[in-house]
Amino acid sequence: MKRFATVLLFFLSSLSLAWAGDEAPTVLSNKTAIDLVQSHADYVWTLVAAALVFFMQAGFAMVEAGFTRAKNTVNILMKNLMDFSMGTLAFWAVGFGIMFGATSTGWFGTSGFFLSDFKVGGDPWVLAFWMFQVVFAATAATIVSGAMAERTKFVGYLLYSAIISGLIYPVFGSWAWGSLFNGSGWLEKLGFIDFAGSTVVHSVGGWAALAGAIVLGPRMGKYTKDGKVKPILGHNMPLAALGVFILWLGWFGFNPGSTTAANKDIAMIFVNTNLAAAAGAILAMVTSWIKFGKAEVGMSLNGALAGLVAITSPCASVSPLSAVVIGAVGGILVVLSVLFFEKIKVDDPVGAISVHGVCGAWGTLAAGIFNIGGTSLKIIGVQLLGITAAFLWVFPAAFVMFKLIDKTVGLRVSPEEELEGLDITEHGGNAYPDFEVYSYGGTSASSSSSGIMTSSSSATMVSEPEHAGAS
Amino acid sequence: MKRFATVLLFFLSSLSLAWAGDEAPTVLSNKTAIDLVQSHADYVWTLVAAALVFFMQAGFAMVEAGFTRAKNTVNILMKNLMDFSMGTLAFWAVGFGIMFGATSTGWFGTSGFFLSDFKVGGDPWVLAFWMFQVVFAATAATIVSGAMAERTKFVGYLLYSAIISGLIYPVFGSWAWGSLFNGSGWLEKLGFIDFAGSTVVHSVGGWAALAGAIVLGPRMGKYTKDGKVKPILGHNMPLAALGVFILWLGWFGFNPGSTTAANKDIAMIFVNTNLAAAAGAILAMVTSWIKFGKAEVGMSLNGALAGLVAITSPCASVSPLSAVVIGAVGGILVVLSVLFFEKIKVDDPVGAISVHGVCGAWGTLAAGIFNIGGTSLKIIGVQLLGITAAFLWVFPAAFVMFKLIDKTVGLRVSPEEELEGLDITEHGGNAYPDFEVYSYGGTSASSSSSGIMTSSSSATMVSEPEHAGAS
Amino acid sequence: MKRFATVLLFFLSSLSLAWAGDEAPTVLSNKTAIDLVQSHADYVWTLVAAALVFFMQAGFAMVEAGFTRAKNTVNILMKNLMDFSMGTLAFWAVGFGIMFGATSTGWFGTSGFFLSDFKVGGDPWVLAFWMFQVVFAATAATIVSGAMAERTKFVGYLLYSAIISGLIYPVFGSWAWGSLFNGSGWLEKLGFIDFAGSTVVHSVGGWAALAGAIVLGPRMGKYTKDGKVKPILGHNMPLAALGVFILWLGWFGFNPGSTTAANKDIAMIFVNTNLAAAAGAILAMVTSWIKFGKAEVGMSLNGALAGLVAITSPCASVSPLSAVVIGAVGGILVVLSVLFFEKIKVDDPVGAISVHGVCGAWGTLAAGIFNIGGTSLKIIGVQLLGITAAFLWVFPAAFVMFKLIDKTVGLRVSPEEELEGLDITEHGGNAYPDFEVYSYGGTSASSSSSGIMTSSSSATMVSEPEHAGAS
Repeated sequence: MKRFATVLLFFLSSLSLAWAGDEAPTVLSNKTAIDLVQSHADYVWTLVAAALVFFMQAGFAMVEAGFTRAKNTVNILMKNLMDFSMGTLAFWAVGFGIMFGATSTGWFGTSGFFLSDFKVGGDPWVLAFWMFQVVFAATAATIVSGAMAERTKFVGYLLYSAIISGLIYPVFGSWAWGSLFNGSGWLEKLGFIDFAGSTVVHSVGGWAALAGAIVLGPRMGKYTKDGKVKPILGHNMPLAALGVFILWLGWFGFNPGSTTAANKDIAMIFVNTNLAAAAGAILAMVTSWIKFGKAEVGMSLNGALAGLVAITSPCASVSPLSAVVIGAVGGILVVLSVLFFEKIKVDDPVGAISVHGVCGAWGTLAAGIFNIGGTSLKIIGVQLLGITAAFLWVFPAAFVMFKLIDKTVGLRVSPEEELEGLDITEHGGNAYPDFEVYSYGGTSASSSSSGIMTSSSSATMVSEPEHAGAS
Repeated sequence: MKRFATVLLFFLSSLSLAWAGDEAPTVLSNKTAIDLVQSHADYVWTLVAAALVFFMQAGFAMVEAGFTRAKNTVNILMKNLMDFSMGTLAFWAVGFGIMFGATSTGWFGTSGFFLSDFKVGGDPWVLAFWMFQVVFAATAATIVSGAMAERTKFVGYLLYSAIISGLIYPVFGSWAWGSLFNGSGWLEKLGFIDFAGSTVVHSVGGWAALAGAIVLGPRMGKYTKDGKVKPILGHNMPLAALGVFILWLGWFGFNPGSTTAANKDIAMIFVNTNLAAAAGAILAMVTSWIKFGKAEVGMSLNGALAGLVAITSPCASVSPLSAVVIGAVGGILVVLSVLFFEKIKVDDPVGAISVHGVCGAWGTLAAGIFNIGGTSLKIIGVQLLGITAAFLWVFPAAFVMFKLIDKTVGLRVSPEEELEGLDITEHGGNAYPDFEVYSYGGTSASSSSSGIMTSSSSATMVSEPEHAGAS
Repeated sequence: MKRFATVLLFFLSSLSLAWAGDEAPTVLSNKTAIDLVQSHADYVWTLVAAALVFFMQAGFAMVEAGFTRAKNTVNILMKNLMDFSMGTLAFWAVGFGIMFGATSTGWFGTSGFFLSDFKVGGDPWVLAFWMFQVVFAATAATIVSGAMAERTKFVGYLLYSAIISGLIYPVFGSWAWGSLFNGSGWLEKLGFIDFAGSTVVHSVGGWAALAGAIVLGPRMGKYTKDGKVKPILGHNMPLAALGVFILWLGWFGFNPGSTTAANKDIAMIFVNTNLAAAAGAILAMVTSWIKFGKAEVGMSLNGALAGLVAITSPCASVSPLSAVVIGAVGGILVVLSVLFFEKIKVDDPVGAISVHGVCGAWGTLAAGIFNIGGTSLKIIGVQLLGITAAFLWVFPAAFVMFKLIDKTVGLRVSPEEELEGLDITEHGGNAYPDFEVYSYGGTSASSSSSGIMTSSSSATMVSEPEHAGAS
């Protein structure tokens, strides 16, 4: 009897709500109202994830600064700040339209430039989606800065940075992800699996980094006259470690955020992402221990990143146990790969080619092998095709681009500038003017300059060095 | 036929759910249930955004530490820690009630002190809203610490910090935002647009910073006897860059979180925020390149912040294209403004007055000019009125406050303390005791002290310097 | 009349939606659909909170690195990276099953190892819940690294790290929190209140830290021959401050995330967490000022953490005013406790025992005293029982574990290694090879090595020191 009354009440209250409500004219059907709340959750989740991925820029900046020398720190920070800033404008103007615009061919999109798909009062989903994608584009771009650190001319780097975000990255992206908005790519039609971008983002960045490192050549002093490797030490391990923790955090946006929807799938993606990173860090540490007799910090940090890159493609379609295996293999692979590239005289100061290029390829292959719904030669074949296509598009395109930059504005600084450090020569100031720093070169640190408001009076500065009294 | 059956099933299942459910006595109407889920999303979004804005405290601490000298690092860290801590308690006790309490006049609120609007078992929205607002209040407070760095007495700073969070900031806030809770301000009644606080937060902080810098006077050594500018270099660029990335991240809470609701509007706000920051960074870099011949890191970092401050007011009511323009102008403006204040001998070590005061005013004006729904002289007039009102309230109030502090507990340290560095004199220890640091002054770094558990045995320390063996 | 039409329209549109919808066969009842959206919000909130708690690892790494010497920085970073990585795998394999698996006794669970509770296609909640719990387990583990810093053998630490995450932590956890998944613990049955883990996480970590610090003994040079305390200074205060801000941020996941549901309760938890942290920081600063004559930075930073640890247990069940009191007492307590442990010659380089052990116990007691629903001797008795049970389980278990590690692989490095610094001896490289660092010992910093790709050529390095030209 009580229950019958409840039902009656329930019905009447619904009725009266609709009847008497101030908002009667805009009453939604319940289903529409529920969908609306779900869409609000989708917006919140996608944009919070985008914020986390944005923060990876800080992670890359810290890792790359930490793994290079103090005299090039301002330069690497500026590159990171600028490839995100340039990348944002380039992806807004051109890249997004190429990657996600309407396409008849499946090779690139041709609409939506300058966010013209968005009309005032229209559906703002394109804006949320753009925000999530722009931070991905910038990730691909920033991967390269580490591999080209300590010897690249700043103006050449700025040019590169606009081209990769505006053209090289979005073209491949349209092949694999175009259908996520209103395009449709040839590779995805074949069934290519790359959920969050082991290939689309990381290998693309990695192969561009490879091209850049080859065109530049090794840093001065990296190899002795008779070809032996000379270590060039990273100057700040707490920054590098902080960077890796920030990247790990950012990956909790990168991978599960790639659902671009608030749903239950994100749980497994979180777990797989975390397990692979942990396994990667441990296995890289163990491998470095075996190889060098010490638990090496640079390798261990890169091992965590290797696990993260490797799980990026398969994160939504493999079991947690597979995630551990995938991350562990990534951790071993990254150490061997770093040694390989060092041996063949490709000088990559931070190991970006190995972490992103090689482990990105591994992860994409692993998505085929460990597929939770079962695998087949066809699946693996398509994954290999996608991996190959990325290399065959990005490496030559980037190689030509870097050669062109080299012939025009210039790609590498002069030997004198390289010795002096790019901070002084390109940016007019050192990163740590209060400290005694060895790598600041023959010139005394006390004549260095940095910080804001300095350049306006550099003449004064030379004649009256700031630290003269103290040194 | 199948569809008819589905509808029937659908109806019957709803009925039976209500009928047989264990929870029958508390059955909600669907509309109420949907509203409840939406409100949960609102809570999550508002509080996650609050967490991001909180994190801006770390950003400010890193930027300010990076842009000042090593010998004053502990001091700037303590100021940042304490203005958030003092600000939290002051805003809880007094500020929130002034800003959002009930008001008959429209000039300040008079209820809700000590969160007394919240009753156990009552609607906890006041708590979520308070949490979002307290991190805004603390942002206004912390802006000032940078402009007053390297010469302010710590006890005087603590006093200031309670007064701005408890009084100066909330009074202006009540004029512009009072109606967000249960107040109502005279300025908002006129139609003043300041969505996320270019004026309410940033200009308020900036004008208080201007007052503080004027009352204090320049740091020793900033100007030569004949009035020329001498650069005083920031000591740690990676910290400064990290700080800017953290602030940029935090702004993804600051601006879109100001909806205090999980809805689709946040997408455009994210996009505008990001575009303006990118444009600001690029244009400031270009401006510094033209002015000084180098792509200056301090200016570029401040350019990103200038873009962010400028877009804070208009972020919800301008197009993405306008956001690019607004950010770009902010980036140019900040460089010119820094040089202007340097020239007129207002010594602002981190550029806070230019970034927050000047670009805050620009952004508020821009909200009128670029308004997506159209603009008019009236709209622009109201924006100018709001900008002016902020200056006319904050600058004199802060000036008087700083003068009073100066006359009582004291505002500036002695010349000896300033030379020695505030870390030793105010806090009993340096920030980097293991490093050779130039700015630690004539006394050897080996006699410095810092870290926990040090002060308890400072006598021992002087006679047995920690680093004696190594130096 | 208009309203009647609306109701009719409303009814008809619902009908037609169900009738004509493509998705007719899978139509959900509205109640089910609403529950689904709510569950999506729960997933998003719980996992975003987990990401914030994960980030606390970076916070601990920075705090511990900042509060110790430069020569042991790589080591502390590696410990932090590895206790999260080892902890992740150990908690996945064993810990989660012990803590949350089915139990008949209430003393430990026995199911769910290797996430075997999760079946493909099944409910993924176990994955979301696991993700939230693994970051808690790792927090307990990482607390210990600070107290054992600067003298622990790395391989011994790795062993410890697997054992606490896989065994010691989850056993106590099952007593207090087992019922959160499918277990049921004896302590929670008695009514023990520990909402987010002042005892379960922090005291457990703190008492393990106490055992470790006792078994290890103090660092060389911490006490003079005649027993006086000699300060050993932390080397990098900006890192320490950054770490505390990151931890404070992470706590906004730690405490409110412990709802593991998107609901309105999170608002009060946010507010209480923030108020307690602020009060803790201020009171610790004031206490240090009174005790030492200076506003000490290490104490103030630890005061914020003390407030956070203390409010962790009571955050959901006390008023904001009580939160201020609880945090303030924590802030005073931590200073006194640090001095106490220093006096009885328990050398805890970062104050972990005081922050987490002592203030964890205080917070758990406070949850009884300040309970918003009223308190009683019984409630306080149960809280004391839980506090005592934690100590009686963790301290002896950890003590035995550390003794066993000491007898087998070894727990403490040799005096020579301790003097040289663990970075060189355990990891083959220093943290800051470009800088003049005092604590790097008698050997010149120029012979140090660090960063990636270094170990492969250490022979070269010794004969051709990297910085020879510059030093």
